[in-house]
Amino acid sequence: MEYRRIKDQDDDDGKPHTDLESQYGKPFSGIDNVLNSGAVSIKKPNWKLKSVVTLALTLLTSSQAILIVWSKRAGKYDYSVTTANFSVEALKCVFSLVSLLRIWKSEGVTADNKLATTFDEVSVYPIPALLYLVKNLLQYYIFAYVDAPAYQILKNLNIISTGVLYRIILKKKLSEIQWAAFILLCAGCTTAQLNSNSDRVLQTPFQGWLMAIVMALLSGFAGVYTEAIIKKRPSRNIHVQNFWLYIFGMIFNIIAIFVQDYNEVMNKGFFHGYSFITVCMILNHALSGIAVSMVMKYADNIVKVYSTSVAMLLTAIVSVFLFSFHLSLAFFLGSTVVSVSVYLHSIGKLQPQK
Amino acid sequence: MEYRRIKDQDDDDGKPHTDLESQYGKPFSGIDNVLNSGAVSIKKPNWKLKSVVTLALTLLTSSQAILIVWSKRAGKYDYSVTTANFSVEALKCVFSLVSLLRIWKSEGVTADNKLATTFDEVSVYPIPALLYLVKNLLQYYIFAYVDAPAYQILKNLNIISTGVLYRIILKKKLSEIQWAAFILLCAGCTTAQLNSNSDRVLQTPFQGWLMAIVMALLSGFAGVYTEAIIKKRPSRNIHVQNFWLYIFGMIFNIIAIFVQDYNEVMNKGFFHGYSFITVCMILNHALSGIAVSMVMKYADNIVKVYSTSVAMLLTAIVSVFLFSFHLSLAFFLGSTVVSVSVYLHSIGKLQPQK
Repeated sequence: MEYRRIKDQDDDDGKPHTDLESQYGKPFSGIDNVLNSGAVSIKKPNWKLKSVVTLALTLLTSSQAILIVWSKRAGKYDYSVTTANFSVEALKCVFSLVSLLRIWKSEGVTADNKLATTFDEVSVYPIPALLYLVKNLLQYYIFAYVDAPAYQILKNLNIISTGVLYRIILKKKLSEIQWAAFILLCAGCTTAQLNSNSDRVLQTPFQGWLMAIVMALLSGFAGVYTEAIIKKRPSRNIHVQNFWLYIFGMIFNIIAIFVQDYNEVMNKGFFHGYSFITVCMILNHALSGIAVSMVMKYADNIVKVYSTSVAMLLTAIVSVFLFSFHLSLAFFLGSTVVSVSVYLHSIGKLQPQK
Repeated sequence: MEYRRIKDQDDDDGKPHTDLESQYGKPFSGIDNVLNSGAVSIKKPNWKLKSVVTLALTLLTSSQAILIVWSKRAGKYDYSVTTANFSVEALKCVFSLVSLLRIWKSEGVTADNKLATTFDEVSVYPIPALLYLVKNLLQYYIFAYVDAPAYQILKNLNIISTGVLYRIILKKKLSEIQWAAFILLCAGCTTAQLNSNSDRVLQTPFQGWLMAIVMALLSGFAGVYTEAIIKKRPSRNIHVQNFWLYIFGMIFNIIAIFVQDYNEVMNKGFFHGYSFITVCMILNHALSGIAVSMVMKYADNIVKVYSTSVAMLLTAIVSVFLFSFHLSLAFFLGSTVVSVSVYLHSIGKLQPQK
């Protein structure tokens, strides 16, 4: 394999890696030894594929928020959120299997695309789902300390936590300019979301800040860990990796249904209250989830954060036309800062690192 | 002179200038032929001097705003603003003369530090004062279209106009990163000033935008023109250049006194209503004015804009302690963006230009 040969040369000459792309081949030594075991190598990312999955994620994420507003306009949620989450995981499993069937038909079953797995490979797959579960549980408690507008603002800490964990855990370097761009992304997204209630965030008590930071770290860690899992065996087919990730997603969501909505589902039925818009939302969430995995495989968490941030701005712009939403001056200023950040991130890549 | 020799070599080899510093030697070919005539050369800027004058400007500008708030806390202005402006110009003239006397004593009178001047040299000196006069006149009319909070926001257009005119008129290049930093400086300063009334700026009618842009261009042009005048003959002593600039400032302010406050000054006297704080403000304005000239001589308009922007943030922080001013989330976000902008501007300089 071409890449492996280049990588081995890199290791032989013993010089520090200065090229961002070559970092893909480094072991994720910050993570537990499960991830460290085995040879780590990856094909050089395909820029066309990278762009397509990033664009798909951006468009799916921005339409996601619009679908949520749409479904809320029709009134309250009539369906159980836990069954919807389960349906999303199940649908993603189905999509992965369909993709695999097509691949098996054209390429045949190989070691990289066979569904069968080992305990070693699959044992780390429940961890991201577990991290998200803990984060979602914390979400109920944080509202004792911060209100919804303040929480919306604090969620932007995810951007910084993802950058820091990406650096620490995946040991991938960002250039000085890219770090500056990342701080700007966080500041720009927060600015774009400013409204007359935002200043309440400054009254957040210490416990609120602590929980917000823990939640940001959990969310960032789940993202970075997923990337580590998916990138650990780069030649492994992404649909097999997704299949196993989603199987654990299904299991965790079944538990959630039993804990939270058992009676409701038993009395009213699993799909009670599902409308056309609910089905669209589930479909959108499933496709977005797959897009996130693809971005993790062919790009990285940094690209994911940029993609979802730009999606947030796109949603606001589309909302002007759909819901006669008014854009604030803060939105324009935040969008300007985010745009400059995207530009700096891209030119930061071209500069040689020091 | 060492620099001139280097400059001549630059011209001889005919290659484009890639070093920012070497741009100092280029003729300001965008300006009228008065500025184009004569050999243009400059000493390599002294970094220590550059830092000292920049720091002085930042501190003087930030204390300026605090003195204004202080004087307002004591009630309305009791003195005539036009006589105060004249006093500022007169004081600057006195400071320049005192500095010149000291220089003549130590170095003797030379062609570069003699006060005598030619029509050719002095003919362009009234232009910046005239540009500011037109801008100040427009200020009365713009309030027909925008209110005070919106005007405060629109004034940040000065940052962009200064950058553009600096590039066009002085033909000095900023790197891609420095341009990005400059856009961020404008967005960051505006964000830091956001309050609940700021969104009114979005309702500004076309005439308001047009006048705001014209005023920003006039202000930017006056700044860039002053730099061009001062840098035109780099070996000329700055205090002589200041003396002539301030003489025209005094003349324009005498006209303003006659037009606006003639009766009041005649009835109540020139210094009526002056308090200790008024004297402090006049002293501060005079020193700030001299610091601006120094920054133009030893640094440039870009440094001036950064210096006054950082001063705006410092003022707000000091106001927290002095006037129990509350800092908003927008202020923190804006300050973050401005800080990143300052950082990017400084690392942008180190990158080789393309």
